[in-house]
Amino acid sequence: MPLTRRDFAKLGALGLAARLAPSLNAQTGERKTGYAVIGLGRIAGHFMGGIRNTTNSQVTALVSGHRDKAERIADQYGVPHSSIYSYEDFERIAENKAVDAVYVALPNSMHAEYTIRAAKAGKHVLCEKPMSTSVAEADAMIAACKAASVKLMIAYRCHYEPTNLKAVQLIREGAIGQVQAIESAFGFNIAAGEWRLNRKLAGGGPLFDVGIYSLNACRYLTGEEPEHISAFASVIDHDGRFKEVEENVAWTMKFPSGIVASCNTTYGAPMNGFFRVHGSKGTLEGAPAFNYDGLHLIGDFGGTHLDESNPARDPYQFQAQAEHFSHCVQNGLDPKTPGEEGLRDMQYITQIYRSAGISI
Amino acid sequence: MPLTRRDFAKLGALGLAARLAPSLNAQTGERKTGYAVIGLGRIAGHFMGGIRNTTNSQVTALVSGHRDKAERIADQYGVPHSSIYSYEDFERIAENKAVDAVYVALPNSMHAEYTIRAAKAGKHVLCEKPMSTSVAEADAMIAACKAASVKLMIAYRCHYEPTNLKAVQLIREGAIGQVQAIESAFGFNIAAGEWRLNRKLAGGGPLFDVGIYSLNACRYLTGEEPEHISAFASVIDHDGRFKEVEENVAWTMKFPSGIVASCNTTYGAPMNGFFRVHGSKGTLEGAPAFNYDGLHLIGDFGGTHLDESNPARDPYQFQAQAEHFSHCVQNGLDPKTPGEEGLRDMQYITQIYRSAGISI
Repeated sequence: MPLTRRDFAKLGALGLAARLAPSLNAQTGERKTGYAVIGLGRIAGHFMGGIRNTTNSQVTALVSGHRDKAERIADQYGVPHSSIYSYEDFERIAENKAVDAVYVALPNSMHAEYTIRAAKAGKHVLCEKPMSTSVAEADAMIAACKAASVKLMIAYRCHYEPTNLKAVQLIREGAIGQVQAIESAFGFNIAAGEWRLNRKLAGGGPLFDVGIYSLNACRYLTGEEPEHISAFASVIDHDGRFKEVEENVAWTMKFPSGIVASCNTTYGAPMNGFFRVHGSKGTLEGAPAFNYDGLHLIGDFGGTHLDESNPARDPYQFQAQAEHFSHCVQNGLDPKTPGEEGLRDMQYITQIYRSAGISI
Repeated sequence: MPLTRRDFAKLGALGLAARLAPSLNAQTGERKTGYAVIGLGRIAGHFMGGIRNTTNSQVTALVSGHRDKAERIADQYGVPHSSIYSYEDFERIAENKAVDAVYVALPNSMHAEYTIRAAKAGKHVLCEKPMSTSVAEADAMIAACKAASVKLMIAYRCHYEPTNLKAVQLIREGAIGQVQAIESAFGFNIAAGEWRLNRKLAGGGPLFDVGIYSLNACRYLTGEEPEHISAFASVIDHDGRFKEVEENVAWTMKFPSGIVASCNTTYGAPMNGFFRVHGSKGTLEGAPAFNYDGLHLIGDFGGTHLDESNPARDPYQFQAQAEHFSHCVQNGLDPKTPGEEGLRDMQYITQIYRSAGISI
């Protein structure tokens, strides 16, 4: 059954377009969007693995401070060694016609600089979350991409993930009635020495890194923007890890409709990412909700007991978001999670820290 | 193995004494504590069922505005009709030697009045939660019981419930390491016409009625008192139910050690009572944690996967708390959940409402 553009727009509204993008792409014969991957850490590995499963995207360049590592990865992905860049000669990427876009997988504090440098080099930007370490940086990133007429997407992978999309769809369809309250949390017990504990690199602690999933989930689950925010933060473990960033944050939000949300994040304890949405007609719970795979949706509403595990394995989420962004790049469409989506989270994160007495 | 008084004190410190009280009682041949049940609504039914399973307690009088109903129940429990009192002639209970204590199962706004009247009549008082509808009332109740040299216990049944006690014990023993954060919630979708929707009778909405379980659980799970509290409240459904009390409350607390807690309560949605405690070494979750039975404790810590269901059926919690209070009455001991415990919750509830902009 061939899909029309109108069909696709409808699916897009449901957030389901990205899942069909490969087949659509096979039909339309779009050329593959070439990505320069900036930063070759853990998450870049997931992204490159995801790219390999797409039909509309490929890795065509690497940017790294470690030439040896970059050459090894280049060989794995068929990237010519001439398309390996250092941070110093990054601007040369402008001349590389095989590079349509960059994927910014650097520590948070470098997102703004490389987004802006990429935009000036005429490349579209897919930037990891958190978008930046401040609202001002996020504003500058959006402005730079606008000025250069390149697309900017923040890598909110859950927006392209079927379990989360199904929760959103069920809520919008009224399956659980009027939403009243949400609980969500995400955290982990961090190892000493991680760059995420360095405030200059990370911007902040677990709220920036994993709490943002709960914050963002409350927004996409409700379809509303929080109107009031209140928070507490703390450091309990004085073992040297938390000299620069907080260990725990608890925060509540109130949305315009009256929906309330209570969230936690931590770097001091295992804390499986979850959301639980309480509606007048029932409950919907993602647990785990934010992991790379193994996601699970449980629901009890109107006599229905839902219990669905998503069998897809990592890096399917990275595949889906790359497919979506490539599709947007190739067809002049706006990504579902543009810079403005990341900017909003930066504004709320700033409010949470301010309420908790932490200046960022 | 006979238990010495010292053994019992140790068990009491672990909160386990109440569980052993019946056998101890059988050993010591304590006489049964006689209760006058004040208010014959739903919860009184659970209490009287629980009493029937104890060896140290019995129902010896009833106080009700409905003589017919009271006579029917009196016959079930072997209470002489001469020991049925109306609210007007309640003071006559002072002369009834078969009544050692009262169980106050009235709407919240009447707890203070009947606790004080019972104390003045020389009877010990087991009062349902919430203790009162204001801090001032709670203070007056404590003062009245002190002045009359009678014991006052608030019916926090979870303090006498093995699943909750086991969670506390595991946390105190360090099973999940340093506690960092807690999520807890409890609520339900209330039917129109309930007295709990009447502010004058109930004092407030779901926070008074069921949110108090989460508030109290955060305190007994941590063994700390909240130092900072912040909250939002809302009414979403304008269907006539929430003209006087709030529909939703979300609140966060910060404890002196730095532990943070995020909680929700609602009268607008099914919301199974749960707590989830995140420690540096693992997680402990009660789900459901606050129901009358069917309680379930799940844990993952230090390679241990705990998954325990408590097979005890309602009214075992009412049995345990009656046994504990009777044991205290008979042996001149202080109950584990005295008036001061209820007073603290009233203080925190007041803070939560104040933070949410609701005056009580």
